[in-house]
Amino acid sequence: MLLMQPGPTPVAKEVETIMTKKMVSFRDPAFISDMKSVIEDLKNIWRSHNAFVIPGTGTLGMEIAICNTVKRGDRVLVVSHGSFGDRFIDICNSRDIEVDLLKSKDGTIVPVSEIEAQLKKHNYKAITVTHVDTSTGVKAPIFEIRDMLKQFEDIIFILDTVCSAGSERIYLDEAGVDIMFTGSQKSFGMTPGLSIIWTSEKFLKRRDDLGKIYEFYNDLNNWLPVMEDPAKYFSTPPITLIWGLKEVITLMKKEGIEARYNRHIKNAKAFSEGLIAMGYSMFVEKEEERTCSLANIKYPEGVEIDDALFRETLYKKGVDIASGYGPYLGQIIRISHMGNVDAKILEIVLDRLEETMIELNIPVTPGKGKETFKAALNY
Amino acid sequence: MLLMQPGPTPVAKEVETIMTKKMVSFRDPAFISDMKSVIEDLKNIWRSHNAFVIPGTGTLGMEIAICNTVKRGDRVLVVSHGSFGDRFIDICNSRDIEVDLLKSKDGTIVPVSEIEAQLKKHNYKAITVTHVDTSTGVKAPIFEIRDMLKQFEDIIFILDTVCSAGSERIYLDEAGVDIMFTGSQKSFGMTPGLSIIWTSEKFLKRRDDLGKIYEFYNDLNNWLPVMEDPAKYFSTPPITLIWGLKEVITLMKKEGIEARYNRHIKNAKAFSEGLIAMGYSMFVEKEEERTCSLANIKYPEGVEIDDALFRETLYKKGVDIASGYGPYLGQIIRISHMGNVDAKILEIVLDRLEETMIELNIPVTPGKGKETFKAALNY
Repeated sequence: MLLMQPGPTPVAKEVETIMTKKMVSFRDPAFISDMKSVIEDLKNIWRSHNAFVIPGTGTLGMEIAICNTVKRGDRVLVVSHGSFGDRFIDICNSRDIEVDLLKSKDGTIVPVSEIEAQLKKHNYKAITVTHVDTSTGVKAPIFEIRDMLKQFEDIIFILDTVCSAGSERIYLDEAGVDIMFTGSQKSFGMTPGLSIIWTSEKFLKRRDDLGKIYEFYNDLNNWLPVMEDPAKYFSTPPITLIWGLKEVITLMKKEGIEARYNRHIKNAKAFSEGLIAMGYSMFVEKEEERTCSLANIKYPEGVEIDDALFRETLYKKGVDIASGYGPYLGQIIRISHMGNVDAKILEIVLDRLEETMIELNIPVTPGKGKETFKAALNY
Repeated sequence: MLLMQPGPTPVAKEVETIMTKKMVSFRDPAFISDMKSVIEDLKNIWRSHNAFVIPGTGTLGMEIAICNTVKRGDRVLVVSHGSFGDRFIDICNSRDIEVDLLKSKDGTIVPVSEIEAQLKKHNYKAITVTHVDTSTGVKAPIFEIRDMLKQFEDIIFILDTVCSAGSERIYLDEAGVDIMFTGSQKSFGMTPGLSIIWTSEKFLKRRDDLGKIYEFYNDLNNWLPVMEDPAKYFSTPPITLIWGLKEVITLMKKEGIEARYNRHIKNAKAFSEGLIAMGYSMFVEKEEERTCSLANIKYPEGVEIDDALFRETLYKKGVDIASGYGPYLGQIIRISHMGNVDAKILEIVLDRLEETMIELNIPVTPGKGKETFKAALNY
């Protein structure tokens, strides 16, 4: 089965294997050294001031970003390009944080000028942006946002990189971000269960300014001493998952992070061209607003297609893709090209898609999708 | 290396292996069925109304117990038999929850009459008890506490079973507990990274009475629909860890949960007798207040012993034990007999302890510890 869902994504054999090492104590010198190296690499590769690895998920990362930067009564601007952007509203609401929402139309971005105008209306303490919203495939214009934010010194820039860190080109310092986070099971190609978080120096100051916060497990000030010196204890580290993450980072370094980003860009572009040649269209129309992490695809127009049957037929041919999420269920399908998904796998997916179309009497020119894909990749 | 620390504890080969299965989507029918079976088994074996498995740790479980049962301004009584009992104070304080502490003297329990007297003084909304405090090895008299609590209908009984669930005999309904929790890496013998939580029907009502709470990830009402129907989504489940946990539970069922409890009781008793025969004494003097999860041991009296050197010497002989925790560092050592630690392993540990004593010129009668241990176990 080819796992083409946008998380969990396929896990490399080396990573699976290393997690079967014999269990050790978290006081074990070799483990302490592994943990140190993971934190150092996360900081160096994504150019952050600090990095954290905590048992959890992407959702936990979202909540940690909020509760370590704003307190009750503070105001937050949520810029949403889909369902996962919206999730920040629930997280803020439950904490009695004032929250305003700027939501884009289907498959487009919120114009940066609108964000700027809104930020001038109130005293905002933080802004949340979803780098890539998995539900729509929209990629936020982070550099424009960064430049615009320079006039708002007091605002903390929270970037949700759950569906981007490890596939989209992102460096915390370059993007002017104060806190970003991901789950291990997306572009990292690790098994799920880890919240990975990067923070800036400005973040640390904001956290300290907040003083006592309600949270304990979510309080990054409780984890910071352990991340700086893994010989210390706060709560039991997820030993096997740290081993796996270390191996994932080793593989990333072997490929080269820039080469990895370029691979994702190239594959995504070629894959979308192949899909378009087969009659599909991309949910995000403008190429510069489209992610290279996954393809959010609309079915060919003018044909009646049973979405569930389509995905089931493809599944039986060994390809597991995702349905539309939330309001987009039935309207779009989603195919990941994150992490360990390479061109060879994408080629097979195009073959199986074509077979599915033929089986379901959906018009398609045989071979055209794959040819276009291969031509775009020059192989 | 024999891993004799009180968590993580040794992991069975079958459990390691199953976690290397090829990654699947959390929508995968086989995974949904695995998750269902884990939740059902947790409910059935520990006789709870609901069960939850969440990426996290024991500490997260403590916080979840507090924030789902009491709100700002409510009053909580913390009964502490060591450092982990104390931790509830920090968790309550950060939330502006009024908290009173009853703390026992070193290695003893807080008398239930004292708890009762204290509960009559104020309108308490919850009581926290640590079933087994890893730092001291004290076991709480949960049945006496249960009986006493019957007069306080409004009080939620929070039992920290981090160092007991899977080794000490505990069933949620029998013990009159409303919420209890553990980490996967203790008596379960799983790898770390999971918070396992059991709740009563009364808990559910209390959670609903609280209405909106500050937390999102920690809000069990957000997880409940997924635990009842794992086809639903809240946050990505830790797929490989769920597979591992399922295998752990299969092994537990094969042994039989009552047989497992009896094994722990028998081994703990024999091990303590062996240790005493070698000149050590148990930190918890009264046998009925002593856990069967681990041995908290005082060095032989009248001999000058370098604690760090002692543990290092033992480590070099292939046995990894824990130092004293917090205020007990240097005063006691801790040896786990949780989960997959069996009599054969404990016998080797006694051998290595004896060799260490001889090497460090600590008086010991050769063979006496092991003989006493074996005699107690009748083999």
